Amino acid sequence: MARPTVGHLDPTFVGMMDDLKTLLRSAFRTENSMTLPISAPASAGMEACFANLVEPGDRVVICQNGVFSGRMKENVERAGGVATMVEDPWGRAVDPQKLEEALAAHPDTKVVAFVHAETSTGALSDAETLCRIARQKGCLTIVDAVTSLGGSPLEVDAWGIDAIYSGSQKCLSCTPGLSPASFGQRALDAARQRKTKAHSWFLDLTLLAGYWDEGGKRSYHHTAPVNALYGLHEALVLLDEEGIENAWARHRRNHKGLRAGLEAMGLSFVVPEAERLPQLNAVTIPAGVDDAAARGRLLGEHGIEIGAGLGELAGKVWRIGLMGHSSQSDKVLRLLGSLEAVLAALGAKIERGAAVDAAHAVFV
Amino acid sequence: MARPTVGHLDPTFVGMMDDLKTLLRSAFRTENSMTLPISAPASAGMEACFANLVEPGDRVVICQNGVFSGRMKENVERAGGVATMVEDPWGRAVDPQKLEEALAAHPDTKVVAFVHAETSTGALSDAETLCRIARQKGCLTIVDAVTSLGGSPLEVDAWGIDAIYSGSQKCLSCTPGLSPASFGQRALDAARQRKTKAHSWFLDLTLLAGYWDEGGKRSYHHTAPVNALYGLHEALVLLDEEGIENAWARHRRNHKGLRAGLEAMGLSFVVPEAERLPQLNAVTIPAGVDDAAARGRLLGEHGIEIGAGLGELAGKVWRIGLMGHSSQSDKVLRLLGSLEAVLAALGAKIERGAAVDAAHAVFV
Repeated sequence: MARPTVGHLDPTFVGMMDDLKTLLRSAFRTENSMTLPISAPASAGMEACFANLVEPGDRVVICQNGVFSGRMKENVERAGGVATMVEDPWGRAVDPQKLEEALAAHPDTKVVAFVHAETSTGALSDAETLCRIARQKGCLTIVDAVTSLGGSPLEVDAWGIDAIYSGSQKCLSCTPGLSPASFGQRALDAARQRKTKAHSWFLDLTLLAGYWDEGGKRSYHHTAPVNALYGLHEALVLLDEEGIENAWARHRRNHKGLRAGLEAMGLSFVVPEAERLPQLNAVTIPAGVDDAAARGRLLGEHGIEIGAGLGELAGKVWRIGLMGHSSQSDKVLRLLGSLEAVLAALGAKIERGAAVDAAHAVFV
Repeated sequence: MARPTVGHLDPTFVGMMDDLKTLLRSAFRTENSMTLPISAPASAGMEACFANLVEPGDRVVICQNGVFSGRMKENVERAGGVATMVEDPWGRAVDPQKLEEALAAHPDTKVVAFVHAETSTGALSDAETLCRIARQKGCLTIVDAVTSLGGSPLEVDAWGIDAIYSGSQKCLSCTPGLSPASFGQRALDAARQRKTKAHSWFLDLTLLAGYWDEGGKRSYHHTAPVNALYGLHEALVLLDEEGIENAWARHRRNHKGLRAGLEAMGLSFVVPEAERLPQLNAVTIPAGVDDAAARGRLLGEHGIEIGAGLGELAGKVWRIGLMGHSSQSDKVLRLLGSLEAVLAALGAKIERGAAVDAAHAVFV
């Protein structure tokens, strides 16, 4: 990112754009030509999907099991659509049965949307099954892969996902600010056949395609964030060098070590084991421990940031990320040792060293 | 930008956000509390203004004298508004008289929008006068300052501008990807009193205020592009160290040198002298010279990129930027020497050295 900025229509940069698209397709496991980084954070990637695929009056069924599906509802309504929410408990995967029932009750549904990996709770949903159900009913799918891309198995083409977005700063371990996204032919057709223009000019897929996806033309749309794209390119090169299946396995292995340590410390996971996301570990804050004080000491004294609970889990849970470059055994061991120290200092009953030993036993 | 990424709610980062806001206020010459960098390129800054201030049915008068006011029209229409275009010739400043007539003809106008410094033609409009006329009629103003911020005098408070956006990559010489923006109280009131929610969640001012502008609260909205903001902070520190009036004077001085050189080469400016922007110099391509070949050689053999014409000026003009860090006498002299060489190589009648001498005479 510190390399000299070149023009966003410079031939050198245009060559890098092509590389970047190839690397992104590989990470998303797709042949979709329209696979590109949206020039803004993942919230804008989400908006790009809804603003293009939802027209006024369109029904969208949203499976809600955390904070980010609530944001999807906002997006649908602001696009003029009708959001039908299918509720699951926070901390659980989306229930495919409920989706089937909702689609049976609402045969006019155009789009099904859900979060693959809920960052607010640490739950992983079965995207393959959900997309199969949606497609059987003739619906388009919008999938939030902000926390899954690069960390958990994700197969855009094999699972038949129509529109998907992610973030640069989660399991890709790039800096925040870009939203990798991919759109299949059915999604592009829906965007092109709209009766009304998308509300957003900045995120209009048909215009973005002119810069990112129409042969060598590269028509100016907006000025691409050149240096940020250098960073994303490098992050994708690193992922490619590791191999994405190896990255998935690494995330799982380090999660197992962390889990052993946290359980040895007496902490319990919010999400049932079979639905647990390896890269986002939500655990219940031990009784009597001050949330803000613990996180503050962990950051201030140990240089480690863990996430607070969001939405209805605020103040009740901690969210421990093991994403991308952070998913390493030495970081897991360091976190466990530091968390033991902080909890002991805050008066919790902690057997110092037990968590580290338990994790170490998984890693050796 | 190469510094370690910290969390977007990390206390260290939150401190930098406050600094950044102070520096941005100083660059915009405003006390507006809601002065912030939008987390995306200037096209999104434009959209933030229109998406928040324009409700379905609202009339917006847009003064059009180049490419970017055409994009404003798209934004108004996608927000459900009615755009009334006031046309001026490309390459001329906006005519205040025509704005007065348009507002007299359309007393229901809610917003007046125009481009302060037209990047597509190099024309500078009299923002102070245009804003005064708009305010006299009770209209809000949206001003595009993408190319003017840091390069030409701009006084948000003294001129009574209600909403303004710029880009990080022009006269601030930062990397592309962020859009500094500022909203006065009247604009915020209009956004807060909307009957319908803004179409964009990502750019909703009332939500952005929770992260950027409500005391120490810093509610999570979207993940801020942390490293890009480091870059913008540094660019604003450099501007502050130079002093913004000094930066304006530097842009003017280097423009004068460039002008002398280009005129010595027989090139003529598109824009009349009194309306000319120092940081964007649009000149007519000499007869018989191949546009793409000349720009290609300048870039490939001399490492200098100049802009092609946009819109109706495509193929007819070159746009030579002297923005921010690029506005230096040595860069002007190098460009002139290189352009002489390229034009001579392409068969134009050029007296080698004349342009460099003419510019040098201005600089000494």
